[in-house]
Amino acid sequence: MSHLSGLSAFTLTPYSRAGVVDVDHLQKLVANLAATDVDSIGVLGSTGSYMYLDRAQRARAIKAAVEASGDKPILAGIGDLRTDWVVEHTASADKAGASALLLAPVSYLPLTERDFTELVKTVTSACSLPVCLYNNPGTTHFTMSSELVTNLAQLPTVMGVKNPAPATLMSATELAAKRGDLPEGFVLGYSGDALIIHVLPAGADAWYSVLAGTLPEVALKIWSARAEPEKLSELQSQCTLLWECFNSWGSIRVMPEISRMIGLGPLDLALPLQPLEHNAVAQIDKSLQALHDNKLI
Amino acid sequence: MSHLSGLSAFTLTPYSRAGVVDVDHLQKLVANLAATDVDSIGVLGSTGSYMYLDRAQRARAIKAAVEASGDKPILAGIGDLRTDWVVEHTASADKAGASALLLAPVSYLPLTERDFTELVKTVTSACSLPVCLYNNPGTTHFTMSSELVTNLAQLPTVMGVKNPAPATLMSATELAAKRGDLPEGFVLGYSGDALIIHVLPAGADAWYSVLAGTLPEVALKIWSARAEPEKLSELQSQCTLLWECFNSWGSIRVMPEISRMIGLGPLDLALPLQPLEHNAVAQIDKSLQALHDNKLI
Repeated sequence: MSHLSGLSAFTLTPYSRAGVVDVDHLQKLVANLAATDVDSIGVLGSTGSYMYLDRAQRARAIKAAVEASGDKPILAGIGDLRTDWVVEHTASADKAGASALLLAPVSYLPLTERDFTELVKTVTSACSLPVCLYNNPGTTHFTMSSELVTNLAQLPTVMGVKNPAPATLMSATELAAKRGDLPEGFVLGYSGDALIIHVLPAGADAWYSVLAGTLPEVALKIWSARAEPEKLSELQSQCTLLWECFNSWGSIRVMPEISRMIGLGPLDLALPLQPLEHNAVAQIDKSLQALHDNKLI
Repeated sequence: MSHLSGLSAFTLTPYSRAGVVDVDHLQKLVANLAATDVDSIGVLGSTGSYMYLDRAQRARAIKAAVEASGDKPILAGIGDLRTDWVVEHTASADKAGASALLLAPVSYLPLTERDFTELVKTVTSACSLPVCLYNNPGTTHFTMSSELVTNLAQLPTVMGVKNPAPATLMSATELAAKRGDLPEGFVLGYSGDALIIHVLPAGADAWYSVLAGTLPEVALKIWSARAEPEKLSELQSQCTLLWECFNSWGSIRVMPEISRMIGLGPLDLALPLQPLEHNAVAQIDKSLQALHDNKLI
């Protein structure tokens, strides 16, 4: 059991303008999630600002999160620009008691498949925790081909992939085809909340969800309805305004506002990422009101 | 005089696998460049691995480079993911005695024009050194529009831009049009060695050159011929094999090999960036032989 399957709630990371993680605040957010029915908690994902925190702060965040997570597995983001930094994050996550690692091909100079393959091998040699390949072309500008994922899945501890949700509906047959040469039990997971209903009914093994990190009750309703297309479609239309906000400003900028609005904030993003302007905040407020009117929160 | 114009030679940065800058080796490379006719020396550009060195190492590199630079101005790369880290690099460069700053919109989460504008304002408030906007979409995934550059050029110390060289020949009229609303004396500079002849004859104010950082004699010949299209075209055809290597593997991976081949190495890139394979090294060797046969080196 790799802990990579099911609904994984990706928490925001509260930190000061100087980049110091507020561990008490983070522990409150994680404890809230631990008290729900989500299957795991993701810490230091993209929305968790991992690339904006230094190595010491990332270690503090993982330690604090594991302490507050009760019996929920913690999936820890370990991506970084240098292999030795990634190895350091790996050791921090392992020492803290994380259950699995999320490894993204973070780049400044474009990476080749060979570069990323060597990185994955180094991590799997350094640590026995399960690794989820974090395929996030929108931030890493590296797209993992199916062939690359299949090759990397041969490494014994590479146990899953987090792919971006597809732009159009995927059938169960198409999803089954994606399992092609992947080992039995390999977790085919997806993220991208606004499009997730394109892949849940087909039988995705996991949903790595930003929404679940702050509004777990909404994500749990969607996840529970994953085999009921009609119910799913109704939930999707009830979330339309929220997805519009995600599409306009990105979930990383929207979620801290929602967190603040529902009393879990304040959370600032690291500069140069600017706070959203008034019109955006008003739209987000409206989208939250719509969730409320539809009794989703 | 902002020191941003003319031929600027961008040096590689030698460092250990653990990311510790070899200051003696760097000083040798910088002193070599200081003894040539280049107009300035660029330190910690993309080819200088700036995003793979931590803050302390970047400060060491700038200090060492300034010490070895004689009377040549040093342009210092200060880009990073967080505004406070950029401010720290700015202070290190200023303290070390750099002559100008190169500021790239480094991103993990995509930046908006507003984000980058605030970053530039912060830097220009923190330091009186001239700033060159480092427009490098290939690594930062942020493209500076002409309008954005024009707006930022209103800030008194924003004195130039480093644009990617165009894919096709630019006329003097087209280049003049680009000066449009830019302040008098604003430096319109270009990089991308393989395509640089597309913009030199039109009257570019500066060439920020990776080639010049390791083979300054070749870049100086091209720069000196910038107003002679026929001579330029001959030089371009003599460099064809080298540009093919740049196009295949990127100048960042090619230049350390050349540095090694001409006795200025060894230089390794930070992992996960893998060394080039034998066939690539053989091609680079051939391209160097061609430069030699053509008496360019």
